[in-house]
Amino acid sequence: MADVPQTDEGWYVLHDFRTIDWDEWRATPEGDRQRAISEGVDYLSDHESVDEGASAVFSILGHKADLLILHLRPTLDEISQAERQFEQTALAGVTDQSTSYVSVTEVSGYVSDAYFEEDGEVDAGLKRYIEGKLEPEIPDDEYVSFYPMSKRRGEEHNWYDLSFDDRAELMSGHGETGKQYAGKIKQVISSSVGFDDHEWGVTLFAAEPTDIKDIVYEMRFDEATSKYGEFGSFYIGRRFPPQDLGAYLAG
Amino acid sequence: MADVPQTDEGWYVLHDFRTIDWDEWRATPEGDRQRAISEGVDYLSDHESVDEGASAVFSILGHKADLLILHLRPTLDEISQAERQFEQTALAGVTDQSTSYVSVTEVSGYVSDAYFEEDGEVDAGLKRYIEGKLEPEIPDDEYVSFYPMSKRRGEEHNWYDLSFDDRAELMSGHGETGKQYAGKIKQVISSSVGFDDHEWGVTLFAAEPTDIKDIVYEMRFDEATSKYGEFGSFYIGRRFPPQDLGAYLAG
Amino acid sequence: MADVPQTDEGWYVLHDFRTIDWDEWRATPEGDRQRAISEGVDYLSDHESVDEGASAVFSILGHKADLLILHLRPTLDEISQAERQFEQTALAGVTDQSTSYVSVTEVSGYVSDAYFEEDGEVDAGLKRYIEGKLEPEIPDDEYVSFYPMSKRRGEEHNWYDLSFDDRAELMSGHGETGKQYAGKIKQVISSSVGFDDHEWGVTLFAAEPTDIKDIVYEMRFDEATSKYGEFGSFYIGRRFPPQDLGAYLAG
Amino acid sequence: MADVPQTDEGWYVLHDFRTIDWDEWRATPEGDRQRAISEGVDYLSDHESVDEGASAVFSILGHKADLLILHLRPTLDEISQAERQFEQTALAGVTDQSTSYVSVTEVSGYVSDAYFEEDGEVDAGLKRYIEGKLEPEIPDDEYVSFYPMSKRRGEEHNWYDLSFDDRAELMSGHGETGKQYAGKIKQVISSSVGFDDHEWGVTLFAAEPTDIKDIVYEMRFDEATSKYGEFGSFYIGRRFPPQDLGAYLAG
Amino acid sequence: MADVPQTDEGWYVLHDFRTIDWDEWRATPEGDRQRAISEGVDYLSDHESVDEGASAVFSILGHKADLLILHLRPTLDEISQAERQFEQTALAGVTDQSTSYVSVTEVSGYVSDAYFEEDGEVDAGLKRYIEGKLEPEIPDDEYVSFYPMSKRRGEEHNWYDLSFDDRAELMSGHGETGKQYAGKIKQVISSSVGFDDHEWGVTLFAAEPTDIKDIVYEMRFDEATSKYGEFGSFYIGRRFPPQDLGAYLAG
Repeated sequence: MADVPQTDEGWYVLHDFRTIDWDEWRATPEGDRQRAISEGVDYLSDHESVDEGASAVFSILGHKADLLILHLRPTLDEISQAERQFEQTALAGVTDQSTSYVSVTEVSGYVSDAYFEEDGEVDAGLKRYIEGKLEPEIPDDEYVSFYPMSKRRGEEHNWYDLSFDDRAELMSGHGETGKQYAGKIKQVISSSVGFDDHEWGVTLFAAEPTDIKDIVYEMRFDEATSKYGEFGSFYIGRRFPPQDLGAYLAG
Repeated sequence: MADVPQTDEGWYVLHDFRTIDWDEWRATPEGDRQRAISEGVDYLSDHESVDEGASAVFSILGHKADLLILHLRPTLDEISQAERQFEQTALAGVTDQSTSYVSVTEVSGYVSDAYFEEDGEVDAGLKRYIEGKLEPEIPDDEYVSFYPMSKRRGEEHNWYDLSFDDRAELMSGHGETGKQYAGKIKQVISSSVGFDDHEWGVTLFAAEPTDIKDIVYEMRFDEATSKYGEFGSFYIGRRFPPQDLGAYLAG
Repeated sequence: MADVPQTDEGWYVLHDFRTIDWDEWRATPEGDRQRAISEGVDYLSDHESVDEGASAVFSILGHKADLLILHLRPTLDEISQAERQFEQTALAGVTDQSTSYVSVTEVSGYVSDAYFEEDGEVDAGLKRYIEGKLEPEIPDDEYVSFYPMSKRRGEEHNWYDLSFDDRAELMSGHGETGKQYAGKIKQVISSSVGFDDHEWGVTLFAAEPTDIKDIVYEMRFDEATSKYGEFGSFYIGRRFPPQDLGAYLAG
Repeated sequence: MADVPQTDEGWYVLHDFRTIDWDEWRATPEGDRQRAISEGVDYLSDHESVDEGASAVFSILGHKADLLILHLRPTLDEISQAERQFEQTALAGVTDQSTSYVSVTEVSGYVSDAYFEEDGEVDAGLKRYIEGKLEPEIPDDEYVSFYPMSKRRGEEHNWYDLSFDDRAELMSGHGETGKQYAGKIKQVISSSVGFDDHEWGVTLFAAEPTDIKDIVYEMRFDEATSKYGEFGSFYIGRRFPPQDLGAYLAG
Repeated sequence: MADVPQTDEGWYVLHDFRTIDWDEWRATPEGDRQRAISEGVDYLSDHESVDEGASAVFSILGHKADLLILHLRPTLDEISQAERQFEQTALAGVTDQSTSYVSVTEVSGYVSDAYFEEDGEVDAGLKRYIEGKLEPEIPDDEYVSFYPMSKRRGEEHNWYDLSFDDRAELMSGHGETGKQYAGKIKQVISSSVGFDDHEWGVTLFAAEPTDIKDIVYEMRFDEATSKYGEFGSFYIGRRFPPQDLGAYLAG
């Protein structure tokens, strides 16, 4: 059996995608609209100001979703409850949960082996870097792209049959590409192995949407991706402050 | 034709996944809510306290389901009736059956050949071990991961064309990985060949969700999985006692 | 071009799968329930007692269907009408047609070449055997498994590129496996080429559901299946007499 | 680049598949039923008696559709309008458009090269033959099978990488099989390249449904199909005169 | 890693596909119909007359959509708002958003390397040509074909593993085919990498629908397509002026 990389986990992640039922919304009387907005703003604000963890709401383009409510929390129970508590709000009455993704932030031994060595001295910089990956912040007012992915187990090209060193080298090349986008792109990598249908979720943040296109396109030429990457659906949107929910619903 | 492993079967299994119709739930008057909860608790408690077999309810994360009601029973008729009896409760009125899986617990000659030899002396320990696989208990208050899977019959890599010995060796390597998680992970393996769309259902239980991620990820590097495993959807959740149904619905 | 096997056809077959709309059923007043049951029993009894052909109703497990109404008739028009006449009953009002399959019973020259030779003397036993395949009876009170299948036309393994002799040999090995289940398993093979999405429908009957699992699993190791079989969804259930419809709906 | 065959086009084709909403139909008062039937008969009769083009209605078996309304017209605008005008009838109120297919009748240089040569003398017989393909009649009272298909562009077997001569030879073998069914099977071949999800639509007509099964099965052994054919869903049904719509809806 | 082509981006693109809810439309009183038409015409006219960008409405054939509302704008926020503002109109009440596609117009270094060279003198003609690709006009009164596509990353044929020169040569051959349709076909190429499920959207315009079929068919024989093209669904329709919306809805 090929060597398995060590991993460490941080916060659990729920990508909760919602479509607005616009027919219902148009038919909702003004008073009930205000209540839906007010309960929605409260829900979103309360969850954004959580002590440990992070939450944010994004407007999403296209038919696959209208809103993404993103939750990161120390426990699976907390993201389960966040999902259920949204259903208690009047805002939920004008939305449907069109899709979702469950995962947990992860770092692996490919990229940070020092971190995993027993007696490895982990300097403060690396520690902060790792913590930023396991307990990430969600940037304000930026564009978001989310997609789930797996490593290919094809008849010819099979990621899980490669040696550890081959995989580590491919991941390192992948990382080099990423570094060129430092300052432009922030990313959250979370594992969904055993939790959801693909193996990882990737959440990218950028002030400029074409930077998202550029990094995903450039990485497609990486051997780690060109030969071994398999992707699910892609979602693109933009974060907005909870207080703008009313403006969002007004068009 | 390649040698077929001997198998023995135990209880039939129904994974009954339900989504809550939250719009309906919010619109349900308090009295009807209490009736739905009370009939739901009764149904779940009665089924959990069955003489022969086992049942349990789990909260599930994400859009694919909100509840998993799991039934194990000596006959197919009993799990069929359990499914239908749920539909007689007021709780059913606020749920939809989003998906399901039908299977039967199974042990095979790969892993326990002594058990299948005609004159084989089966010691008490092995017998208890096998019975625990065929008539398993559902652990209290633990996380659950369910996924259906099949063995690949690809153009190149075809599980069903391997010799018995090759398959047995691969299964044994797979088992070795599993043993490292003894005490952390309990699993129920059930065959759905001829019953449902994949060949087996796998149900994992753990006190710690990351142990589920770790075992599934580590096994992905097993040759039995890397070359021959094909997976359906993954579901993650947590068992709760029937009496907590009201609290669950309240968020 | 590879030699095409001769075929003969018998009765047309409709597998009409229905889900119960349980929300609707619970909301149906007692009088309307009785009317739905009574019209359902009449429809099912009338169709079961047809002069030429056969019909039966089965309870199906899981979310894919609750009922399978199976019709075999000498003409396509008759199964078309049977489908439409069900829609005239009050029972139809609490069901949805979730899926279906259209085919015609078929024997082929692989298995019964004497039958197809022009001057071939077909003895009475073979004739009865063939008739039993073309105009089959539906066994009482037994479990049913239905699945559609096709022969693979892969880049490497292509059933339709094999020589007639190779195909006949593979089918004969397949038949040998089947013979070991004589007395335990009855099967109806029907072609859906040009009629529905796969190439054949397979309907298995057994007094013991694990015999269904065993035969399908054992056949998966046949080269005819391991290299060349492609399967759709599997459905498992049990026949019940029309008079039990009320009891079925009561849980 | 491989040589592209010349093509000529005739009428645009819409396969408009409709399911009956039988719950709605049962709930429709007699007067409204009569109006739905009467507007449906008018729509269908008017379209069948079009000056240039052809239309017909078919009953379809199974859950995928109940009716196929088939339109052939000289322009894309006319089939677009035929689709929209159906929606103006009361009959549309008890149907849903479950699927559809948009294409244009086509002949290609593989089969009729004389027709495409600049100075080629096209004798009257060939000309009539070609016109019958580009502006086909829809046979009365016959069974219909429709399926969309594409030519495979697999990693190994790639239709579009073959030389023109190889493709022409394969198409010619395909044609030979077809000729054996002259008098039994009529077919309409229409291209949907750039218009719909597969590359062609195939519509077969026969007085005997088993002839449809036989030709499709026999052709599956053609190398043009066995190696290069990829199929979508299959639909089977029977034409009926518009005046029989009421009888059709009555079961 | 293979060389990544340089790219430049222009306007963001939303393909917003809508089905008409014809049952709802037939049930809508005349006054409300007029309001829906009037608000729809206003929305479409206002968006077509935008200062920077372009919008248009098309009637689409078949069940996948009835209308395509196409928006091109300098920012992602503007197409997001255009989508949401449609939902504020009474016309939205009789439509559902059946599908959509999010992308951004793109030129790449394969086809216009001079444009990307730092000191490259870009002559006025090339500049106009590039601008026409990045900020394209939508032709009046023409047929439209839309489809999403990706480059294959197969086990054997993998676009992203080819050298830059090989890719550039294949793209150039592809371009040659396109040039033969100059004057007949206009196209908008937009990247959806990181934004939507395929890698590019292709929108073709033509006065003659068979020219669309011809170019797509001819290009299928290009090696760039035959070996490396993977396509999603195809949509075909025709542009109409907003003022014709009432006539469109009337059949």
